Amino acid sequence: MDKGSAAGGIVVFSGSAHPALADDICAHLNLARSGVAISRFSNDCLQTQLLANCRQRDVYIVQPLVPPTQEHLMELLLMINAARGASAANITAVIPHYAYARSDKKDSSRISIGGRLVADMLESAGVDRIITMNLHAPQVHGFFSVPLDHLTSLGVIADHYRGQDLTDHVVVSPDLGNAKQSTLLARLLGLPVAAGNKQRLADDKVVIESIVGDVRGKKAIVLDDEIATGGSIMEIVRKLMEFGATGASVACAHGLFTGRAVEKLMGNPDIHEVVSTDTVPAPKGFDCLKVISVASLFAEAIQRIHDGKSVSRLFRDVDPSYAPPQAGLF
Amino acid sequence: MDKGSAAGGIVVFSGSAHPALADDICAHLNLARSGVAISRFSNDCLQTQLLANCRQRDVYIVQPLVPPTQEHLMELLLMINAARGASAANITAVIPHYAYARSDKKDSSRISIGGRLVADMLESAGVDRIITMNLHAPQVHGFFSVPLDHLTSLGVIADHYRGQDLTDHVVVSPDLGNAKQSTLLARLLGLPVAAGNKQRLADDKVVIESIVGDVRGKKAIVLDDEIATGGSIMEIVRKLMEFGATGASVACAHGLFTGRAVEKLMGNPDIHEVVSTDTVPAPKGFDCLKVISVASLFAEAIQRIHDGKSVSRLFRDVDPSYAPPQAGLF
Amino acid sequence: MDKGSAAGGIVVFSGSAHPALADDICAHLNLARSGVAISRFSNDCLQTQLLANCRQRDVYIVQPLVPPTQEHLMELLLMINAARGASAANITAVIPHYAYARSDKKDSSRISIGGRLVADMLESAGVDRIITMNLHAPQVHGFFSVPLDHLTSLGVIADHYRGQDLTDHVVVSPDLGNAKQSTLLARLLGLPVAAGNKQRLADDKVVIESIVGDVRGKKAIVLDDEIATGGSIMEIVRKLMEFGATGASVACAHGLFTGRAVEKLMGNPDIHEVVSTDTVPAPKGFDCLKVISVASLFAEAIQRIHDGKSVSRLFRDVDPSYAPPQAGLF
Amino acid sequence: MDKGSAAGGIVVFSGSAHPALADDICAHLNLARSGVAISRFSNDCLQTQLLANCRQRDVYIVQPLVPPTQEHLMELLLMINAARGASAANITAVIPHYAYARSDKKDSSRISIGGRLVADMLESAGVDRIITMNLHAPQVHGFFSVPLDHLTSLGVIADHYRGQDLTDHVVVSPDLGNAKQSTLLARLLGLPVAAGNKQRLADDKVVIESIVGDVRGKKAIVLDDEIATGGSIMEIVRKLMEFGATGASVACAHGLFTGRAVEKLMGNPDIHEVVSTDTVPAPKGFDCLKVISVASLFAEAIQRIHDGKSVSRLFRDVDPSYAPPQAGLF
Amino acid sequence: MDKGSAAGGIVVFSGSAHPALADDICAHLNLARSGVAISRFSNDCLQTQLLANCRQRDVYIVQPLVPPTQEHLMELLLMINAARGASAANITAVIPHYAYARSDKKDSSRISIGGRLVADMLESAGVDRIITMNLHAPQVHGFFSVPLDHLTSLGVIADHYRGQDLTDHVVVSPDLGNAKQSTLLARLLGLPVAAGNKQRLADDKVVIESIVGDVRGKKAIVLDDEIATGGSIMEIVRKLMEFGATGASVACAHGLFTGRAVEKLMGNPDIHEVVSTDTVPAPKGFDCLKVISVASLFAEAIQRIHDGKSVSRLFRDVDPSYAPPQAGLF
Amino acid sequence: MDKGSAAGGIVVFSGSAHPALADDICAHLNLARSGVAISRFSNDCLQTQLLANCRQRDVYIVQPLVPPTQEHLMELLLMINAARGASAANITAVIPHYAYARSDKKDSSRISIGGRLVADMLESAGVDRIITMNLHAPQVHGFFSVPLDHLTSLGVIADHYRGQDLTDHVVVSPDLGNAKQSTLLARLLGLPVAAGNKQRLADDKVVIESIVGDVRGKKAIVLDDEIATGGSIMEIVRKLMEFGATGASVACAHGLFTGRAVEKLMGNPDIHEVVSTDTVPAPKGFDCLKVISVASLFAEAIQRIHDGKSVSRLFRDVDPSYAPPQAGLF
Repeated sequence: MDKGSAAGGIVVFSGSAHPALADDICAHLNLARSGVAISRFSNDCLQTQLLANCRQRDVYIVQPLVPPTQEHLMELLLMINAARGASAANITAVIPHYAYARSDKKDSSRISIGGRLVADMLESAGVDRIITMNLHAPQVHGFFSVPLDHLTSLGVIADHYRGQDLTDHVVVSPDLGNAKQSTLLARLLGLPVAAGNKQRLADDKVVIESIVGDVRGKKAIVLDDEIATGGSIMEIVRKLMEFGATGASVACAHGLFTGRAVEKLMGNPDIHEVVSTDTVPAPKGFDCLKVISVASLFAEAIQRIHDGKSVSRLFRDVDPSYAPPQAGLF
Repeated sequence: MDKGSAAGGIVVFSGSAHPALADDICAHLNLARSGVAISRFSNDCLQTQLLANCRQRDVYIVQPLVPPTQEHLMELLLMINAARGASAANITAVIPHYAYARSDKKDSSRISIGGRLVADMLESAGVDRIITMNLHAPQVHGFFSVPLDHLTSLGVIADHYRGQDLTDHVVVSPDLGNAKQSTLLARLLGLPVAAGNKQRLADDKVVIESIVGDVRGKKAIVLDDEIATGGSIMEIVRKLMEFGATGASVACAHGLFTGRAVEKLMGNPDIHEVVSTDTVPAPKGFDCLKVISVASLFAEAIQRIHDGKSVSRLFRDVDPSYAPPQAGLF
Repeated sequence: MDKGSAAGGIVVFSGSAHPALADDICAHLNLARSGVAISRFSNDCLQTQLLANCRQRDVYIVQPLVPPTQEHLMELLLMINAARGASAANITAVIPHYAYARSDKKDSSRISIGGRLVADMLESAGVDRIITMNLHAPQVHGFFSVPLDHLTSLGVIADHYRGQDLTDHVVVSPDLGNAKQSTLLARLLGLPVAAGNKQRLADDKVVIESIVGDVRGKKAIVLDDEIATGGSIMEIVRKLMEFGATGASVACAHGLFTGRAVEKLMGNPDIHEVVSTDTVPAPKGFDCLKVISVASLFAEAIQRIHDGKSVSRLFRDVDPSYAPPQAGLF
Repeated sequence: MDKGSAAGGIVVFSGSAHPALADDICAHLNLARSGVAISRFSNDCLQTQLLANCRQRDVYIVQPLVPPTQEHLMELLLMINAARGASAANITAVIPHYAYARSDKKDSSRISIGGRLVADMLESAGVDRIITMNLHAPQVHGFFSVPLDHLTSLGVIADHYRGQDLTDHVVVSPDLGNAKQSTLLARLLGLPVAAGNKQRLADDKVVIESIVGDVRGKKAIVLDDEIATGGSIMEIVRKLMEFGATGASVACAHGLFTGRAVEKLMGNPDIHEVVSTDTVPAPKGFDCLKVISVASLFAEAIQRIHDGKSVSRLFRDVDPSYAPPQAGLF
Repeated sequence: MDKGSAAGGIVVFSGSAHPALADDICAHLNLARSGVAISRFSNDCLQTQLLANCRQRDVYIVQPLVPPTQEHLMELLLMINAARGASAANITAVIPHYAYARSDKKDSSRISIGGRLVADMLESAGVDRIITMNLHAPQVHGFFSVPLDHLTSLGVIADHYRGQDLTDHVVVSPDLGNAKQSTLLARLLGLPVAAGNKQRLADDKVVIESIVGDVRGKKAIVLDDEIATGGSIMEIVRKLMEFGATGASVACAHGLFTGRAVEKLMGNPDIHEVVSTDTVPAPKGFDCLKVISVASLFAEAIQRIHDGKSVSRLFRDVDPSYAPPQAGLF
Repeated sequence: MDKGSAAGGIVVFSGSAHPALADDICAHLNLARSGVAISRFSNDCLQTQLLANCRQRDVYIVQPLVPPTQEHLMELLLMINAARGASAANITAVIPHYAYARSDKKDSSRISIGGRLVADMLESAGVDRIITMNLHAPQVHGFFSVPLDHLTSLGVIADHYRGQDLTDHVVVSPDLGNAKQSTLLARLLGLPVAAGNKQRLADDKVVIESIVGDVRGKKAIVLDDEIATGGSIMEIVRKLMEFGATGASVACAHGLFTGRAVEKLMGNPDIHEVVSTDTVPAPKGFDCLKVISVASLFAEAIQRIHDGKSVSRLFRDVDPSYAPPQAGLF
């Protein structure tokens, strides 16, 4: 390979969180994933060594923040630190699931805002840009001062449902206070929307008090950004049935399915389908899970970033509906 | 005055945005507001001079970001800069209405996020702490890396309605995507909740497509964080009446009432009451406006900060319902 | 268009301060100005959206800080913020008139130094480089830690006078304390120099006590960096006539002509000519104003910056006298 | 409690790494440890809430970086972040074992330097000062730009041996390349010194090639800063016996004893004693382990820091030999 | 000494530049100067050790930047670094002569601006505040982002002349381009002002082409901020005599008198007096030099800063004429 | 010259510390060294002007920190500052001898850590990358947050000895506490290793108490990173002879030979050879000094950095033994 084409070339690394996704992204980019040696001192401290030349390269490090989250976060920070020390031209952290976005506000006294802290840590380590997908709240974008490309899975999820008979369907948000994505999906599918009205009984106990909006006799498409233990989903489905719904399809961007989630979801007769993307690794043995790949979206974003093309154009060129409706001022 | 008591004392300044509020706060603190000379070069650049000694003092600068917003923002930045140059021990910006919180996400390509930019500017100018009230979204807290005390007007607004007969009332959020505050108010008042489902027709044209939740035959309490031109409020009230509501009381934290808002609101027979706080100056001649003062809340926050007491205790000691329910993890 | 030529290309945006200058600069660069959507929330906060791809581009944003100065400054900061968020390779603020340079020192207690504050704000927003012209004091250069290219209008102003009969002329600085530019112009034209000795009577009242240097029987060329209300100019011309001068030509880099300046200058029979550049928009109906364009100087600076050529060479290649004499150490 | 004494008072928190040590420190300080609620989102992200008022307090957070190291590090960062957000006057991280000091240099290409990265992360989170003990290398002090008080366990370890018959003893460093601490201990005890000459056979395989210095017929006191799996210790003791030593006492500051360390050390007949401090929790069932408490050293450092007294005096006042000999320039 | 009075007390250190001034300042403050051990590695690198407790103290380090300037600057930076590492509450650099202010603009291509660089270095080392006197240009204040107290020697110099018969005197600035201080002195003394019109013949050769203003038959008081080799002074005095002046008194804030300056000034019969302050050490054997002490001004500034009193009041309380006339906007 | 090849080209400057080395590096790079005008204000402040266009160039500034160290350090900082102001694309400080690495820890109370301070100053001035050789301790790498390429002279020094008969030789480290490099050299040469056990008698008096390891009847190869006054070397050689060694060859990376070092070393009959590299200028008249050039190593590093090739490959491609054995985790 001659120098000219090498200098400034793309190099893709992966931490140990989700190498399969990194491989899929690389396949779309038609290049090989470069290796990383992740080792552990006998005192449990991590160390990372990047096994490909980074000097003046356009470096991408793929690492969703999935459990064990702290380990994967530290791996990512160390890889960024190593890439900076190795004189990378640009370091982009590809974080398909930025889990710390869940900690995005101070809803109690003297509580940490992990979403901002981790953003600062990434910048302190030397990251130049972030690519992520479906942040828990769109405001988390503003926690970063480096450029951030915020992809959406709404388009591919809408595509999934477009192939189905949507008669008598309603899109449901589990939380009335955070219903923006469900509203957008409803609009893309031409369906009405409803939402659960959560009530916090105690510090660790949330119930859905009621359903706001009409669901009687309807099939619900429940959309959440992340499903972890599945507790919220089970609760909203239970309430939907109580309010007269006839069943539910459950969809999310980030399907973690931790704890007993797979068991609970598979065992619930009212849930006939669970849909997720591959921003995080899918659990084994979750037969009724439908996984939609977003590797090509990430690959195209990386290619466009590297080529100096607009990423926002990505959504328009492929399918206008993949992008959220562009809000103006009001 | 002897040195000991002076060093470390509280000094309160006000820009030109809302001196009446600053005076009310000072009255509660039992001290005199210190002067600021705000002048303008012949080329329109602003200059500020603080007219009281700041050295080792605990300096508070009161300035809501009300129109002309850019002028008031620049005044605030220059006052902070002057206080830092004057060796203030601590500089707290008291921004009862942080208007740039409206620009809190990137909902279009290559758009500015003013809420984060202004936060960075305040920190770059030298601010040490922020006190504010009812941010447009709670995540905006995370745009700041300095400590921020986030007060809420929910308690005083709830108090206002507690004195009324609330039979057949419903709390309504104009936007299903941002219904958290309305949900909280509904819970404080023991009322059901409903929300408008907004649709954006064009870049500058939003309509409320439908009302999610049952409002037929009910009196609506419409709660928004800010009322500016009143367009959204007029639209939701129109829709509420169309869906069978019998009238509306309108409440907000920040009552700017710009453009023809006063005229429109006063001329609408379905609106029998408009409630706001005094975080921003009230317009002249808006007879049916009920203004609830929050000066004592700000004064108590300042006193507690200065004394090293917990501000979160403020809400508990005075009235538990003034604080938002403390959310844990789920 | 192929990728190679697009990536790294020049993109020029303009705020609303002086689009005509931006167009002239673009004409010299042989490219089209890219659009910006500047909108205003109903609460008066500004928002900007850049309407051309910035990714890996060399972005230039043209915005002199002319009245309404705070609005134009905020526009500029938001455009820089948007360009950074859009992954621009380099962001250069082209600020032909950096008005806040007027606030360059602390000549009173607890006063803001706006020139440094605004420099910090620009850097905090993400600017990479500044191009400006005729700063109020050359030391203001040191307020910036990013590279700054400081152009001079002295050459084009000298050219203007070189075409005239300069017998019995004298170059006059309105202020003995700030006479460097006048001294340089005098040397370029081979003329003697004189200066006004200002005295401050009260905080807002300056008089010129006397003229230092010989002006009797001479035509004065009065040079100032900026003319705003014209008060200082009227005063120096009055004093020059009192000391025996026979008339005055008035020149400046930045001709703001605010307030009643046009009326005053046109009505003064002792002033036979007013000369300015187009760093700021010229007022309507100021017939005797001679405007000299500096658009080509800015265009050539941008082209040389983009091409990695020396900007200091700009002055030498075109006309040696355009550059200030190069001072060494002494 | 009256306000005066409360404002500026000491507040001590502990993460989940070593609450027993925090309690011991608090006992010496005669105050109660304040609570922290450490919770975990269902997606494995951590959240911390400080359960005591921090405003204007002098906050100390005790957390050695012991396994699971990444979890404890993140807890520490979140507690610092929460304390900053809660307006603490000063935030001191008390990190008795700064495990990431092991990653203190770049001994391979493109490798992370975790010791510096974690120092930057702590500063980015908002820490004001560090108290630590026996850093792996004294240069790690320079990785921090905030003040760091570096305590030593050398004095208490020397005290332990002073009570014994030290005839025919020699102090041994496992690594000739890092023998400073052993040399200092030898001097405090008036003993000769020897060292192992390590050779790295492969990336994960180190052998001690030889012993430099005379150990024949002597009892060895082997000193290391940290014992984790015990592999290095087993190797040096084996080599010492091969070179004629008659047995070994093993001492360290940080006794992690991970993996099969306890089993290996207890099963080695040549090791008659293992000595450690309580900077990290001691393993269960390690009967022959002698733990020396350093809680009083940390408590006294905290008290002196809070009182504005010199910490370096700590070593002199208690026992001059606790401090390392003060090196000058040479 | 009891703890209460010690914590937060003033500690004054001096580098090796001007310990006599530091001692005089300490005498006015009624406290003893604390020691510093300044040593040099055999490779010429400097090291400093502060010999008094700094923890929570208000630390002042006195060091004018006099030749050998680089050595003294590095000493100062190392002392600041040591004080920060030693947990000083506040670190104030007392730099009576900030020599790098001479390098305050870019008057050639690719030239360093040392005045800003050194300001950044001081801040990077950890300084919290600067006290200085008579900066070469008042704009240099804006090179610092930390608070800076800018004292003036104009008052004590005016006092010196007030005691003399000032009939037929004129105040002269050596440089028309930098005549502000001379203009102020003239006003304080009620005298006219004149200025030299410098011309640069070559890079290292400046001549004064002419005198602007009337000096014939008058005694000149030549005021400069700094006298180093005395070349400029000799040149202006020669020109003054050529234009008919009858003699000169020479005054400056910073009398460095480097090279052959003493010899040249003492040997010039037209100079009957040389006046300087003690911001820098006076040369030996300069008999006709009149040194005016400013130690009490610095001591009072330090005391007022420590007590949280206004420093600007310093000038007003002692003698209103010590302060420069307060300029407003125009 | 056409634009394409010029933009982004390498420009090499040298301060006044070691222009001969810079010339040798340039010769290997086949380009001409660009000029720098280093001048001095009459008040001893330095000023630098880079005499070649830097815009978008890849700028390298060669300056080892040799005596007068403070002067050379300030020159370097000013050149970096000038290059940043001149819009250099990348600024690499080539510091073959980073002398301040000697100040790398706090071994006394309230002492400066010059190695970190100078690293911060370089970054504050605007440096983007460092190339250096044989840091006093490898941890000093972590004092920098910018990328640093750390070259080693161990390979060329080993080559020097490989050509000799090494029968009965031993490699000796003067200091048991810092014996890593000697251990590595011993391994490269297949020789045993010994070390001096230093004892500090007083602050400025170090003696070597004993030799650890067997040296009787052997020729010693004494390796140190830096030789300045030669005191340590004289002491270790004296002790080696006392312990039965038969002579010594002395080698170092940085041969400063300050004070009476040349005289002492040449006059010692037990030292038959002194070996150094040319990272610093060799003293005149040191006849028995063998200087090994490292200019080609620096040139190749610069070329590889500029070409985006791995620098670590440099060692492997040329000679594997040039690189230190790659340490893994243990």
